[in-house]
Amino acid sequence: MKSWAGNFFEDFRVGQQIAHVPSRTLTDGDAAVYKAIYGARFDHGGIDDLLVFHTVFGMSVNDISLNAVANLGYAEGVFRRPVVPGAVLHAHSEVIGLKQNSDGRTGIVYVRTRGFDDEGKEVLGYARWVMVRKRDIDAPASETVVPALAKSVMPAALVSGSTAPVGDHFWDDYQLGEKIDHIDGTTIEEAEHAMATRLYHNTARVHFNLFTEKDGRFGKRLVYGGHVISVARALSFNGLENASRIAAINGGRHSNPVFAGDTIYAWSEVLDKAELSARDQGALRLRLVAAKNLPCGSFPDQGDSVVLDFDYWAILPRR
Amino acid sequence: MKSWAGNFFEDFRVGQQIAHVPSRTLTDGDAAVYKAIYGARFDHGGIDDLLVFHTVFGMSVNDISLNAVANLGYAEGVFRRPVVPGAVLHAHSEVIGLKQNSDGRTGIVYVRTRGFDDEGKEVLGYARWVMVRKRDIDAPASETVVPALAKSVMPAALVSGSTAPVGDHFWDDYQLGEKIDHIDGTTIEEAEHAMATRLYHNTARVHFNLFTEKDGRFGKRLVYGGHVISVARALSFNGLENASRIAAINGGRHSNPVFAGDTIYAWSEVLDKAELSARDQGALRLRLVAAKNLPCGSFPDQGDSVVLDFDYWAILPRR
Amino acid sequence: MKSWAGNFFEDFRVGQQIAHVPSRTLTDGDAAVYKAIYGARFDHGGIDDLLVFHTVFGMSVNDISLNAVANLGYAEGVFRRPVVPGAVLHAHSEVIGLKQNSDGRTGIVYVRTRGFDDEGKEVLGYARWVMVRKRDIDAPASETVVPALAKSVMPAALVSGSTAPVGDHFWDDYQLGEKIDHIDGTTIEEAEHAMATRLYHNTARVHFNLFTEKDGRFGKRLVYGGHVISVARALSFNGLENASRIAAINGGRHSNPVFAGDTIYAWSEVLDKAELSARDQGALRLRLVAAKNLPCGSFPDQGDSVVLDFDYWAILPRR
Repeated sequence: MKSWAGNFFEDFRVGQQIAHVPSRTLTDGDAAVYKAIYGARFDHGGIDDLLVFHTVFGMSVNDISLNAVANLGYAEGVFRRPVVPGAVLHAHSEVIGLKQNSDGRTGIVYVRTRGFDDEGKEVLGYARWVMVRKRDIDAPASETVVPALAKSVMPAALVSGSTAPVGDHFWDDYQLGEKIDHIDGTTIEEAEHAMATRLYHNTARVHFNLFTEKDGRFGKRLVYGGHVISVARALSFNGLENASRIAAINGGRHSNPVFAGDTIYAWSEVLDKAELSARDQGALRLRLVAAKNLPCGSFPDQGDSVVLDFDYWAILPRR
Repeated sequence: MKSWAGNFFEDFRVGQQIAHVPSRTLTDGDAAVYKAIYGARFDHGGIDDLLVFHTVFGMSVNDISLNAVANLGYAEGVFRRPVVPGAVLHAHSEVIGLKQNSDGRTGIVYVRTRGFDDEGKEVLGYARWVMVRKRDIDAPASETVVPALAKSVMPAALVSGSTAPVGDHFWDDYQLGEKIDHIDGTTIEEAEHAMATRLYHNTARVHFNLFTEKDGRFGKRLVYGGHVISVARALSFNGLENASRIAAINGGRHSNPVFAGDTIYAWSEVLDKAELSARDQGALRLRLVAAKNLPCGSFPDQGDSVVLDFDYWAILPRR
Repeated sequence: MKSWAGNFFEDFRVGQQIAHVPSRTLTDGDAAVYKAIYGARFDHGGIDDLLVFHTVFGMSVNDISLNAVANLGYAEGVFRRPVVPGAVLHAHSEVIGLKQNSDGRTGIVYVRTRGFDDEGKEVLGYARWVMVRKRDIDAPASETVVPALAKSVMPAALVSGSTAPVGDHFWDDYQLGEKIDHIDGTTIEEAEHAMATRLYHNTARVHFNLFTEKDGRFGKRLVYGGHVISVARALSFNGLENASRIAAINGGRHSNPVFAGDTIYAWSEVLDKAELSARDQGALRLRLVAAKNLPCGSFPDQGDSVVLDFDYWAILPRR
């Protein structure tokens, strides 16, 4: 059969290497569509870091997560080189862990996915784990391998890169433990999340097919978790306007599903601060929490309304 | 009167030459919007062939089909030169046939439409026929001229052009009569088809105006038939991933109307195979059938759910 | 507090200078998104004048009108230099007037906003006035200053710039007092106006947040007034196809709110004609009126259906 129904849990082997095709060229056009969908105002002088992340992620979906039940987490995400308009991105994954669930119907696949530019230089690497269905519940379970993943990326691994300040708040001005309500809310439309997700070449069916999903788990299309990250990140400009570059993704959890019609709010907490070798810049470790249909003035971090808990390092200019 | 209500059937004459204005520059930006709307993953190293087709078609709508009842068919479509970002497209039509319908209220207009680049070189030519209203049902009928149109484009007329393979299935691997279910379905949103259709400068009112259409034939806006072609073509990547270039359009029929909210599925059949002078490439003549709200595992090709029956030549790499 | 709730009426002072950040680069990508959202067919060989206007306007929202009740008017808008893809736009506003309303809860802020290119040359300047809430109704009122603003821009201030004619109607063919029904109507979708408004970096909440607005004045999200200008302007191609460049904005009023689902129609009236120093071009002063869910064959200019009354100078080629 020539059409592809995706890999199932029993198809993966630890150590397996997968080159994702096709490659994807990111242009000024992609950047403009991204801007229109999210309204991101961060000034990064090129392609938004999250557009790079979603594109590399999206390229991997066809091989890794077409039969996913849920995307469980990310770790060790490092943005190594900025991507400029016109760059051709290639992506590759290695299976670094497997663990069948006790019900025998699903298992967790751990992969390390890397994106490369046309010169073969890595622009982004990250680990993720995802729950994948088995095709045949009687297929024997692989030996369990659970990789040891760092709780956060070490500051020494962060790649700095200056951008001009666009607001009053510098790295120096943020305090450990400080919480910031990003105030604004934005309502997600079906056309917006579907266009974004297609822009990323992400083909997971649950985001696109109402005919199937109306009889599925939720009765409607599920919004791609990465879309929620980008919505929340765009909102976070209000209070973090100089955090123009994401240097690393330490972790992330999609706590509850998001659907078209939901209004997303967000707040941030400063988890850590690090100096960088570039003296004019510093890194903030930030927790970005998003909630649906719930303003975030009281900084909610649990309950059915919380949809995202995302941990990353951002680069800011110093005074 | 300075505003334009479009030509009616009695305004056309066989042999009439119409230069369509304005011209249209296709950029990386247009390619990105196209990608976001369809999720097309074919790697053609430039502007998607169907974006070129829709743009040339769209430029012709204002002169040819503003008063159309239905777009009836296409033939002899040949993609002669790839279009690169930045190209300025010009379009021109010749009326090649006319046939008033027996009810005296409408007639069929046959045109040959051509798109040219800034050097005046033809990038695409095709014939289409469309049922157009009369302004005045008492206007005398033109003499009937029905052009002889080829059932399919001869392989010798196909322009080859290599692209790197992105999957395992080469020209050699497809068999005559082989059918491929493209599996996935995608739901069309109003904002998506309206944005696509406007991107093409297609001004046919039935796609945009809910106020009028709520009292019209369908009670809602009709999706541009070409939008359905692009949706189905994007789905066909799953099973035809190396068919990155369309070389010719042999024919096409929009069997039933499509509306926002419909979920489109598609399947393909290999109708013919041809070698090309370029030894590393071959052509497949493919039938692409799309259905609404009906998975295509049983290859449906008739009934109310079938919305498109499209016949084209694609270029694939050979082993 | 690091997040920004916007300036309130009592925060403004006459003479205050505000540099808006961040800057905004307009690319072919932004032009393509704009084209897909509006279907604008005017051929201006660069970035659409209204895309420049909305971008400069949008950059000013965060500082000027985040707490606006209503955008009341524009005047003295002059497009001084065409903007080409790749240009970086900077924006700056000066407060030129203040007038507290008698209810003591709101006041009118008059600003002159200017957009500059990367060489520091002004590309666009305009005055606008907007009703802004007070944070504290007991805050003392500023001294009232109401600037004298011209009813229209003098023809001598208009910057000409030739574009190739794309239709039969030249400057010479339009008569004073002539009215043109643009015939077509287009229905606005939530995803379209939200994407457009985000493209402009316009962060006014009333356009994006259904959760809040469902309990607000209208029970739903309000469409950005500038979106309606662009919709009406795109419709006006039908009858004004050679009016490819906007040279000045004399004034504009958003007479009634517009919501997703509304179908916009438009008509134009020729208010004035002016010769330009460039002999092959002339200027038309046009009134562009838009109505919702009401075809404009009878040229409506008052009542609940009229949503826009816009006065501008366009440049057309002469015979």
